[in-house]
Amino acid sequence: MTLLFMKRQMTGLYNHSFLINLIFIMNKLFVFLFIGFVCCASLSAQTIDVYPTHWWAGMKNPELQLMIHSTNIADRIPMIKMTEAGMRLADGITLKRIERVENPNYIFFDLVIDKDAKPGKRIFNFGEGKRKISINYELKERRQGNGTAYAQGVTSSDFVYLLMPDRFSNGDTTNDRIAGMKDQSLNRDSIFLRHGGDLQGVINHLDYLKDMGVTTLWMTPVIENDMPNRTEHGYAFTNHYKIEPRIGGEKAYLQLSDKLHKRGMKLIQDAVYNHVGLYNFFVQDMPSKDWLHQWPEFTQTSYRDQPLFDPHAAESDKKRTSDGWFTQQMPDLNQSNPLVANFLIQHAIYSVEEFGVDGWRIDTYIYNDLDFMNRCNKALTDEYPHITMFGEAWVHGTASEAYFAENNINTPFKSNLQGITDFQCLFYGIQPAVNEPFGWTDGVNKLYTTLSNDFLYKDPTRNVIFLDNHDLSRWYSVVNENLQKDKMGFVWLLTCRGIPQMYYGDEVLMKGITNPDGWVRLDFPGGWSGDSVNAFTGRNLKADQLSVQSLIKTLANFRKNSSALKTGKLMQYLPVDGLYVYFRYDENQTIMIVLNTSDKQQTIDFSKYTERTSGFTNAINIFDNTINATSSPILLEANTSLVLELKK
Amino acid sequence: MTLLFMKRQMTGLYNHSFLINLIFIMNKLFVFLFIGFVCCASLSAQTIDVYPTHWWAGMKNPELQLMIHSTNIADRIPMIKMTEAGMRLADGITLKRIERVENPNYIFFDLVIDKDAKPGKRIFNFGEGKRKISINYELKERRQGNGTAYAQGVTSSDFVYLLMPDRFSNGDTTNDRIAGMKDQSLNRDSIFLRHGGDLQGVINHLDYLKDMGVTTLWMTPVIENDMPNRTEHGYAFTNHYKIEPRIGGEKAYLQLSDKLHKRGMKLIQDAVYNHVGLYNFFVQDMPSKDWLHQWPEFTQTSYRDQPLFDPHAAESDKKRTSDGWFTQQMPDLNQSNPLVANFLIQHAIYSVEEFGVDGWRIDTYIYNDLDFMNRCNKALTDEYPHITMFGEAWVHGTASEAYFAENNINTPFKSNLQGITDFQCLFYGIQPAVNEPFGWTDGVNKLYTTLSNDFLYKDPTRNVIFLDNHDLSRWYSVVNENLQKDKMGFVWLLTCRGIPQMYYGDEVLMKGITNPDGWVRLDFPGGWSGDSVNAFTGRNLKADQLSVQSLIKTLANFRKNSSALKTGKLMQYLPVDGLYVYFRYDENQTIMIVLNTSDKQQTIDFSKYTERTSGFTNAINIFDNTINATSSPILLEANTSLVLELKK
Repeated sequence: MTLLFMKRQMTGLYNHSFLINLIFIMNKLFVFLFIGFVCCASLSAQTIDVYPTHWWAGMKNPELQLMIHSTNIADRIPMIKMTEAGMRLADGITLKRIERVENPNYIFFDLVIDKDAKPGKRIFNFGEGKRKISINYELKERRQGNGTAYAQGVTSSDFVYLLMPDRFSNGDTTNDRIAGMKDQSLNRDSIFLRHGGDLQGVINHLDYLKDMGVTTLWMTPVIENDMPNRTEHGYAFTNHYKIEPRIGGEKAYLQLSDKLHKRGMKLIQDAVYNHVGLYNFFVQDMPSKDWLHQWPEFTQTSYRDQPLFDPHAAESDKKRTSDGWFTQQMPDLNQSNPLVANFLIQHAIYSVEEFGVDGWRIDTYIYNDLDFMNRCNKALTDEYPHITMFGEAWVHGTASEAYFAENNINTPFKSNLQGITDFQCLFYGIQPAVNEPFGWTDGVNKLYTTLSNDFLYKDPTRNVIFLDNHDLSRWYSVVNENLQKDKMGFVWLLTCRGIPQMYYGDEVLMKGITNPDGWVRLDFPGGWSGDSVNAFTGRNLKADQLSVQSLIKTLANFRKNSSALKTGKLMQYLPVDGLYVYFRYDENQTIMIVLNTSDKQQTIDFSKYTERTSGFTNAINIFDNTINATSSPILLEANTSLVLELKK
Repeated sequence: MTLLFMKRQMTGLYNHSFLINLIFIMNKLFVFLFIGFVCCASLSAQTIDVYPTHWWAGMKNPELQLMIHSTNIADRIPMIKMTEAGMRLADGITLKRIERVENPNYIFFDLVIDKDAKPGKRIFNFGEGKRKISINYELKERRQGNGTAYAQGVTSSDFVYLLMPDRFSNGDTTNDRIAGMKDQSLNRDSIFLRHGGDLQGVINHLDYLKDMGVTTLWMTPVIENDMPNRTEHGYAFTNHYKIEPRIGGEKAYLQLSDKLHKRGMKLIQDAVYNHVGLYNFFVQDMPSKDWLHQWPEFTQTSYRDQPLFDPHAAESDKKRTSDGWFTQQMPDLNQSNPLVANFLIQHAIYSVEEFGVDGWRIDTYIYNDLDFMNRCNKALTDEYPHITMFGEAWVHGTASEAYFAENNINTPFKSNLQGITDFQCLFYGIQPAVNEPFGWTDGVNKLYTTLSNDFLYKDPTRNVIFLDNHDLSRWYSVVNENLQKDKMGFVWLLTCRGIPQMYYGDEVLMKGITNPDGWVRLDFPGGWSGDSVNAFTGRNLKADQLSVQSLIKTLANFRKNSSALKTGKLMQYLPVDGLYVYFRYDENQTIMIVLNTSDKQQTIDFSKYTERTSGFTNAINIFDNTINATSSPILLEANTSLVLELKK
């Protein structure tokens, strides 16, 4: 998540880090008092939380680091003199090392799991008699398919639908409020309060998505955000190992994953490594002071990418970008602390295995410790060779964008991230293409130029392209509610190189300017019982809405069977007078796409593009199946587009 | 040269190539008729032109290819059966191969010159009796210093002054018109006609330039442009081996070179490989049809860089960029023809050796055959290891710019060009820095971001930075005649990384918008006798003009002795609210530069930049030598700048 208004204004730097330090000191004080006055017997009754909450037998990587969290746990586990071989802790599990940290409420176990360890529950016992302490732990059987039926990867053959669970559809009203959670709001009239949408709501409408040609679902994060407010977006994790109960918890998430896979669809999980919610248990009770990036006074990230690659950057600017807090409510994790790093990496692996995730979207990629990110990405692909991942890199300029992905640039730091959210194709691409008058460097020439810079990327087809998302003004508003321009955007989205991603509700022309971002996070019409307009059924949709929905459905379904659009090469011609012609092609198919971004009718002369049109005699409009002979030119109205399949 | 108005409008595509073909056919026809009717005796009296007009003994590369041009020369040189060892043509010179082309008026000799060949005149004799033909050729003694006292290279330690010889100063009125040349215009009232400026005018004012801190002179081309009109710019060569007589010819050019070197100054030559003037002898009488890039009808280059690197480009777009003609008056040379390539490469070597050139500026770099350019650049550095070169790459975007220079990008084609004219630092750098309001991606943030992309270049300090040139609106006009902004530009120019280049007359606030380009090519005040204002002496200059002249003089002369500004590292801090602070530093010196691009007074707090300011107690303003303690902040007025040397 990136909050646009925060990116633009860096106001209100309060001394919040001091508060965190105070919490930390108070906690430690409390523990000492506790030890002094409470008897040992009562201690053994303390809850013991273990993270990851469970693991699996038969993972490729035999290592596992457990974070054990319980009042004064470090003092309750006896000091053990460890040999190099370690200590057999339970059937198939060896303890190699115990790590104690500043806060005695935490202890960390470095385990090695035997290659042939059997699935099943174990008890780790320490001490004897009244001081005896037992920790329950389970190695489960791996998910069916062991990373082939899931962790499949999301590619340019897919079509991604991004939605916010709280705002898409309320399929289960019993979870709208959960007792004991800090945010008890439920008010659809406020853009910042909870609306009640949930995973059941998504499950109920998977057929709608599939019919529209969607192959892959990306939801804003599904992990617990037990924060006092602004819990609708999900980017402030309070416990990585709990799925947000207000959207249905683990059970609903597992169901959703299964139902997607049964339909041949895929699941992307939205991961946040950079920060957590202020009320995360390990912020409220920090394992050590260096669990977070600490500052003498509250310091927000500059939200600036440049210091990360600038050969002329000041170290202080780099540090602020990487280590500054995302907001006061979202402290910055210190990923150079190996315990933090392991916690995050293991949670990523856990999520894929537990929920059958296929693709991985990484929030605020650039503010993470980039060396950590490389290790983390590698850990995922080591375990799941087919999984794909892409990171949010909201920057300006193709070189800046490419820096954060696998690229063709020799720099001291090399990213191993497969793809990025291609903001250049948006800001310096389709947006000016449809909105700006054509000029030497303006209008559709920006889109053309941005794509010409693809030599920077190792594989630009792994970039995710989009017209908008939960942080951006909605496409229909960006094009000033011009229906033709809106449609031209979708034609581009589904025919350009890369992985197309659309944002929920754009198919029925949902509007909104991201000022603030809540206005682009309104409810999907028909997602709540009693909605007068229902985009799922078409009830009360206007003609314009139906026509966009139909365009996306036609093109996305055509694309499903189009090798050229899914995996073909791209050839683009120099735009002339606002007319932009490009091709997607392979050995079996050639698709010609024409965007007339100008305000006048233009003539398409096939002979101008002989490199791709020669040998073909007919051009079939994929929307209405009309056939045009390539020997005669076609006229194309202002601000409209064409998708033509060339035939011999 | 790039004519802005042509870059923007691509109108008027006439069938000019046809005309050239007609000329070619007519010439061939003429030759046949000539052979038929004229006796052999008279043929031997024909002038024989040899290119290069002379060469040198003792060059590193022993090979030399002579172009011999004379009516029916190919038939007058007998067919010789050549052994592998070749034929001894004269003392120290072996003929390895004779190449005949379509047009019998040309013949090409591939020579090898003995390592120990002595300087001196030779006669190459062919045939006997009445058919005997003699060709005179001279190997001269190499220029003193053999590439150490010249071909020195121009680096970031230099300060380059760009002028147009016709528009700087008229030092010799006897050459204002030259009888027999096509353009007999001489009218200072017209921006497109000749004004009479010349090299003697430049020689007369070298002390002025040296006093101002200039170390290096770059003039728009000095080679003969015997064209009917628009001869003021010099980019339409008609004979590579003649220095334009209207600016003083070879003699004046040699004198200028000597006088520069005597002052410890350097000379850059402006090279044009891509095209020639329509009236070039080898266009009017083409060696072969493929001497030029031929088109079925006149086809202008698209002036587009993108097809050259775009992985998605159409071949036809690439061809148009590279092979399209620059204008109807400037046909495109076919550099993939090895004879054309050798002609151009040898002329480059010739120019350096003959005139003692130190640096090499390459016009319209991107429209050349880039493989040819690599060979050409290598030939120059093989012969002159210290020479430096930079190419005009008028493009948009740091990745596009870097593509044409030595860079850190792995692409199928790799340029070996040392540096480019850094248009990004202008269009997306200092121009918006002083002219645009500060914003997330606007104002001085553009300059900051452009420099942050320096990771793309192998060595960005080899780029030439500038505020304007002969193709661009003058800096003072660009900043809307705002004196403070004008000065801020020069402070930046002389303190940023790279090779600073200024344009003649900017020191006295010459104005002009490049619409058309003639308006930015007005006469330097004081260059003509009778000028009421004289910028050389200061007569009738206004206070504002004097103050800019003085600022440049002070800073450029300070720079001469400033290791930090000349070769130090750059460190830039994130601009805040339009305040941009950067440092140039090395082990011996630290210079702090502050540009307040905002419209309000700002406070400079040295403690914000401790990475570079710690250890220093005083900051000395290099303009007025005032001393500020670094312990207390300084105030800086809106739109002004500071250059501070930090001292312990």
